[in-house]
Amino acid sequence: MASPDPRRLSLNTATVKEQWTLAQAIEGCARHGIRGIAPWRDKLAELGLQKAVSLIKAHDLRVTGLCRGGFFTAKDWLDDNRRAIEEAHELQADCLVLVVGGLPAGSKDLGKARERIRESIALILPEAQAAGVPLAIEPLHPMQAADRACVNTLEQALDLCDALGEGIGVAVDVYHVWWDPKLEEQIARAGRKRILGYHICDWLVPTRDLLNDRGMMGDGVIDLPRIRGSIEAAGYAGMHEVEIFSERDWWRRDADEVLRICRERFASVT
Amino acid sequence: MASPDPRRLSLNTATVKEQWTLAQAIEGCARHGIRGIAPWRDKLAELGLQKAVSLIKAHDLRVTGLCRGGFFTAKDWLDDNRRAIEEAHELQADCLVLVVGGLPAGSKDLGKARERIRESIALILPEAQAAGVPLAIEPLHPMQAADRACVNTLEQALDLCDALGEGIGVAVDVYHVWWDPKLEEQIARAGRKRILGYHICDWLVPTRDLLNDRGMMGDGVIDLPRIRGSIEAAGYAGMHEVEIFSERDWWRRDADEVLRICRERFASVT
Repeated sequence: MASPDPRRLSLNTATVKEQWTLAQAIEGCARHGIRGIAPWRDKLAELGLQKAVSLIKAHDLRVTGLCRGGFFTAKDWLDDNRRAIEEAHELQADCLVLVVGGLPAGSKDLGKARERIRESIALILPEAQAAGVPLAIEPLHPMQAADRACVNTLEQALDLCDALGEGIGVAVDVYHVWWDPKLEEQIARAGRKRILGYHICDWLVPTRDLLNDRGMMGDGVIDLPRIRGSIEAAGYAGMHEVEIFSERDWWRRDADEVLRICRERFASVT
Repeated sequence: MASPDPRRLSLNTATVKEQWTLAQAIEGCARHGIRGIAPWRDKLAELGLQKAVSLIKAHDLRVTGLCRGGFFTAKDWLDDNRRAIEEAHELQADCLVLVVGGLPAGSKDLGKARERIRESIALILPEAQAAGVPLAIEPLHPMQAADRACVNTLEQALDLCDALGEGIGVAVDVYHVWWDPKLEEQIARAGRKRILGYHICDWLVPTRDLLNDRGMMGDGVIDLPRIRGSIEAAGYAGMHEVEIFSERDWWRRDADEVLRICRERFASVT
């Protein structure tokens, strides 16, 4: 299988969140020939939206996603998601990534949480469409169902998209879905229309933390070329966004080294 | 919802594995009025099979499962599974629990590992049937796909059962399946015929370890009465086996206290 086009690499800024501000990440991407970026909103707020827009434009980067909207089971979800849509619009982001939220405090009712998520997305979807911002539901790994997102498989996310209609799709992050026996079938089902983002990293063995122990591509057990093959066969032509949460390793390294290795591994193992 | 019949409580010996030998666990169950037990094979080997059979019979306990066969991607899998079937037969266990194994060392090919698992079970199934030992595939949580079991949903396990025929079913452990949006549907599909075991504990928030940080029933976010309702509606009439791996908490407590609390919580929150 041929290596992916290096121009399709994007950096999710969480990968260097402990080392760099958003301005540094934008400049770092430009310096390393990485053509896409996906900022997180806390870093965006720090820099200021208009400054971020200018700097991203000055370096001609594509915004592959804004992280994140969602958390529909939290109290201030509506205002927060409206601001996120506005920011994604200003950044001309490919999508606003939705991490939908887990169980509300004190609740054990997954069905009800999932119902609330569907209703909340239905409420903001027309506003997102009016702003030209596609919404991307990111199914998260089942180990994060309680506290971060109770949409946990691609099938479930696509059922939700089908119930919601146009202007909505999924972000496929290999870390969350690699184990799924229905992965290939559901990627094919999603097709070009529904796949709005593709995130890469690796699953380490052993994994020592449920959130912040992701691996660099090639250091774990995910068959990245196989998943890329499925994604491409489904018609996805967008960028490949590296997103690594790594308390013990990559957040402790020099960020230029991290970006250099991202580029190398993107070419050699994905 | 009425409490479950206290006579349906069973103890998986992993719950007190740091405190007790198998002989102590058998006597502990008898002392606490727990009518079922599910031994692990390392403890069984320590005590000796015939001694275990006698002691379990003397205390009139039902063996709700033998833990475990499986690990079909390991080298000595065939001999080991034959011994496990023989032991389950001697113990008159309700089932031999299969933890099917993850990726072989150095492999990233989940599809091939899953195929090997299907073929291996097909090979031992006639021997298990001849010995009168039902095989129970236990789908494990997706976070254990790489290293312990790449059968990760009830749907996948039931597809495997359908491909394999008679004499095989599933062990439903709430810890592994609670998050699954298709759980109720798949429990109904499984029905009385395929549900060979039901394991209970709880999912803690936060969970600090991918293997050994399970909670006591009532201490986490799993809606145990709802899942019990589904299991019972599907016709399951077997025992409810408490299985808690807990490095930081329950393995450090006095084992009599653990059994006392298991009984209390079984009545009050499951």
